[in-house]
Amino acid sequence: MGEINGYTDLEKQRLLLNEHEEKHFMSSEVVRDIILGVSDGLTVPFALAAGLSGANVPSSIILVAGVAEVAAGAISMGLGGYLAAKSEADHYARELKREQEEIVSVPDIEAAEVAEILAQYGVEPHEYGPVVSALQRNPDAWVDFMMKFELGLEKPDPRRALWSALTIAFSYIVGGIVPLVPYMVIPIATRALGASVVLTLVALLIFGFVKGHFTGNQPFKSALQTVLIGAVASAAAFSIAKVVKA
Amino acid sequence: MGEINGYTDLEKQRLLLNEHEEKHFMSSEVVRDIILGVSDGLTVPFALAAGLSGANVPSSIILVAGVAEVAAGAISMGLGGYLAAKSEADHYARELKREQEEIVSVPDIEAAEVAEILAQYGVEPHEYGPVVSALQRNPDAWVDFMMKFELGLEKPDPRRALWSALTIAFSYIVGGIVPLVPYMVIPIATRALGASVVLTLVALLIFGFVKGHFTGNQPFKSALQTVLIGAVASAAAFSIAKVVKA
Repeated sequence: MGEINGYTDLEKQRLLLNEHEEKHFMSSEVVRDIILGVSDGLTVPFALAAGLSGANVPSSIILVAGVAEVAAGAISMGLGGYLAAKSEADHYARELKREQEEIVSVPDIEAAEVAEILAQYGVEPHEYGPVVSALQRNPDAWVDFMMKFELGLEKPDPRRALWSALTIAFSYIVGGIVPLVPYMVIPIATRALGASVVLTLVALLIFGFVKGHFTGNQPFKSALQTVLIGAVASAAAFSIAKVVKA
Repeated sequence: MGEINGYTDLEKQRLLLNEHEEKHFMSSEVVRDIILGVSDGLTVPFALAAGLSGANVPSSIILVAGVAEVAAGAISMGLGGYLAAKSEADHYARELKREQEEIVSVPDIEAAEVAEILAQYGVEPHEYGPVVSALQRNPDAWVDFMMKFELGLEKPDPRRALWSALTIAFSYIVGGIVPLVPYMVIPIATRALGASVVLTLVALLIFGFVKGHFTGNQPFKSALQTVLIGAVASAAAFSIAKVVKA
């Protein structure tokens, strides 16, 4: 068998590739947005309410503060996520335009950049040469190649910005309501605090466990870490509020 | 000139590449962390304080709530950032191990995956074949190639998690103190609110402008967007607090 047949085998293998599914964990962007919203939503309003309880503020005002915080946090994080996704999309569009211009205006430099990328992996000039020629034949593919391999940029989904904003905001509200529920029904803040601590710790444990499962980390470790953040943040808020109030 | 000379020219070009510096904007991770912290820090405590002012809560309690929120937010975002960076590093380590095992246990499938990646860009089997052979010769480079081009994963910096946490937390505190300063010196909340609005809007404008400059977006557009988030979040917090209090 000569080289030509070797490469034909490689192509056959390539076409059979669909039958092999790699179990690499790909954390989806939606999962990331939900985690971002829920974990901050469970933690910050909880800690704020705990801090105000420590400063002897009545439940009714704690509830006002908590609800105002949840609204502000959801909007700030949601709009922030929207603008971040938008700015990422703008960045991609600008770099795409630049690469498109460069393969026309400085094609030799762009060809050398392809060579540079492949040479990093120990590929020799006579081996990467044909790949460079193939890309030069097909300018659109060449631009895509540079976007991904030189700049490490993926084509963003145009609907992503809006969805990301809504997902983060909604997740923050869902997480933020949990620690506030006791303050809605128990007028004495120090008593409501006890119920809020229990309710939120349970929610943080469950959320941390599920998060660990979805991000491919150990669920128990993730559950403990998530509870730790909530506990440290609210202990700090509690102590600082006591000091400021005094 | 034959093919061999053509490829030698390509290599010469490649070695001359250092002289050509592309002005692609690369947003550094530190800049991203500072932006994340400051923008949320300026917005949420500002909106919370505005909301509580709308509900006729005295400045002293607003200050307690604001400081508790800043402490909780800084810790929650900082520790959240720390764990996110840690979990990214763990994810990289797991995938690296898997790729290392796969190029030993299923080398043909991994070779076909390299072929698949290059075929996407219109490269023919006889052109990508030599690249596949080059990677097979050098297993370490092959694994690096798969990590970057199949999975799109970059090797994470081990010190990143801690720095990211500290940068986000510190930025949140710096941003969060700005809207609270008027409540420290003006006991009547509705008057403090006016000063807080002016101070924070100016800070949001300056911050948005600088942010636009660093992220490669139009500074004026960025300044207006940043102010808009702050205004919408605090208007919402203000209205909701008024409704809950009533």
